[in-house]
Amino acid sequence: MYNDITIIGAGPAGMSAAVYAARAGCSVALIEETVPGGQIVTTNEVNNYLGFINIDATELALKMAEHVSSFGIDIKYESVKSIDVSGEIKKVFTKKNIYESKVVIIAAGVKRRMLDVEGEMKFRGRGVSYCAVCDGMFFKDKTAAVVGGGFTAIEDAMYLSNICKKVYLIHRRNEFRAEGTIIEQLKNYNNIELVMNSVVTSIDGDKKFDAIMVNNERQIELDCVFVAIGMEPSAQFITSDIHCDENNYILTDENMMTNINGVFAAGDIRKSNLKQIITAASDGAIAGTKAAKYVKE
Amino acid sequence: MYNDITIIGAGPAGMSAAVYAARAGCSVALIEETVPGGQIVTTNEVNNYLGFINIDATELALKMAEHVSSFGIDIKYESVKSIDVSGEIKKVFTKKNIYESKVVIIAAGVKRRMLDVEGEMKFRGRGVSYCAVCDGMFFKDKTAAVVGGGFTAIEDAMYLSNICKKVYLIHRRNEFRAEGTIIEQLKNYNNIELVMNSVVTSIDGDKKFDAIMVNNERQIELDCVFVAIGMEPSAQFITSDIHCDENNYILTDENMMTNINGVFAAGDIRKSNLKQIITAASDGAIAGTKAAKYVKE
Repeated sequence: MYNDITIIGAGPAGMSAAVYAARAGCSVALIEETVPGGQIVTTNEVNNYLGFINIDATELALKMAEHVSSFGIDIKYESVKSIDVSGEIKKVFTKKNIYESKVVIIAAGVKRRMLDVEGEMKFRGRGVSYCAVCDGMFFKDKTAAVVGGGFTAIEDAMYLSNICKKVYLIHRRNEFRAEGTIIEQLKNYNNIELVMNSVVTSIDGDKKFDAIMVNNERQIELDCVFVAIGMEPSAQFITSDIHCDENNYILTDENMMTNINGVFAAGDIRKSNLKQIITAASDGAIAGTKAAKYVKE
Repeated sequence: MYNDITIIGAGPAGMSAAVYAARAGCSVALIEETVPGGQIVTTNEVNNYLGFINIDATELALKMAEHVSSFGIDIKYESVKSIDVSGEIKKVFTKKNIYESKVVIIAAGVKRRMLDVEGEMKFRGRGVSYCAVCDGMFFKDKTAAVVGGGFTAIEDAMYLSNICKKVYLIHRRNEFRAEGTIIEQLKNYNNIELVMNSVVTSIDGDKKFDAIMVNNERQIELDCVFVAIGMEPSAQFITSDIHCDENNYILTDENMMTNINGVFAAGDIRKSNLKQIITAASDGAIAGTKAAKYVKE
């Protein structure tokens, strides 16, 4: 089937792109593999999306999906297998269909790595978080742990140290991978306790999360644990002709255009310095507007 | 008075910056000259801010202001006279106070040029708009006019031509200032009618806007008129040491930092390719987060 624009992914970026493209008079196919909302649905409540003081995460995702359908766009629940963006007419292949269009906007988001231990799914969004900037504030003056040893984990620990009473930084190795300057800075944070050579072996709690076990032997009582062991772009279908950074995040210009004419990227899958609901929605607005302009020219 | 961060302007950018900075544990002074909401309050309803299908503009501005106050931040209603960002402690001077802080975020927005003719204020937000991408969709299949002769006016006319039945492009001169390629493209738009050598002399209607008068002699019946005669950054207090483009929009890097350490800019006042509520709020989120990081380092 043919549309002006095919959008891959119905997270905040893809949905905002759909709204802006539809308002600009373009026909849109919006394809989503699972449910609308992207990373929103991995959390419990949201209080940093300006205009919603405090909203249930699922409710926000649904409001966004309703917003999209108010423009007459039906989300296609299909999994993208491959794309062909070499010609003027781009092709997106799912198991059932071939979507053809003049523009493709890739807004497929990221997959966060999970600890894959007992209790993680049970307390996800209720004590177990994958984003310190998103959820830190819910644990003001509480005790937190960050799990991970990379730059993000250290940054998250520093971010939380200013909000939480105490922060454990739990790392499986005996030293950090991140560059020296940030390690030096870490020493100035009095309320961060390093827990080295330690692996989280379970996430514990009865009705409410209250502790983690490390190395099967030490229990640490906590109000929340932030998992920062990495994320990766949902890039399995991305062809090698689209320029990415070394971690497979797609490189774009200010207009969200990739190196290939007519191919845009928006949201978490794009290389950027802050990944939030509001930044993804903004990316989508830019991509949708510039894509519509591209369609007309 | 001293805070970690002083934010100038309580539009979407400044308010989002305040939310993100407060959540990161920083103290914030948020200064606004008139009312919260920035350019939002120049329109009537909003249907492109993802999550709100259709919301009264004033209500959206109020929701954002409530969001800010939910973090214990009181907006200071004062006019900024000057700033001194030369030292490590930045100073923002209002008539009544001196605000000192480690970081200043400039989110003072823009002032849109008005036609300054009879009827303009009366129908502002009810037929008279200053942003085609924001409000075009409200006039689907209707008759529109764009007033102006610059790049933005031509782009707006093209944008609207895809939504509206007919678009008049009204320009006071006998030729366009914009570069040749876009003028060439204009010829391909069959539903754009050029009205050259024409100045809008009044905006007419009884209860409802229905026409404009040009050159005091020709009445053009319309459903909406988009004024695109330029806007300028609210930059009267900006010192020459902050790098701006030739139109006084502030230049920033991807983290919203200006050329001066500890001085950030966000929203419409920043040089960018799309000025929308969602992009301003995203700018603010980035500025607030990166500013908080700067405060700690």
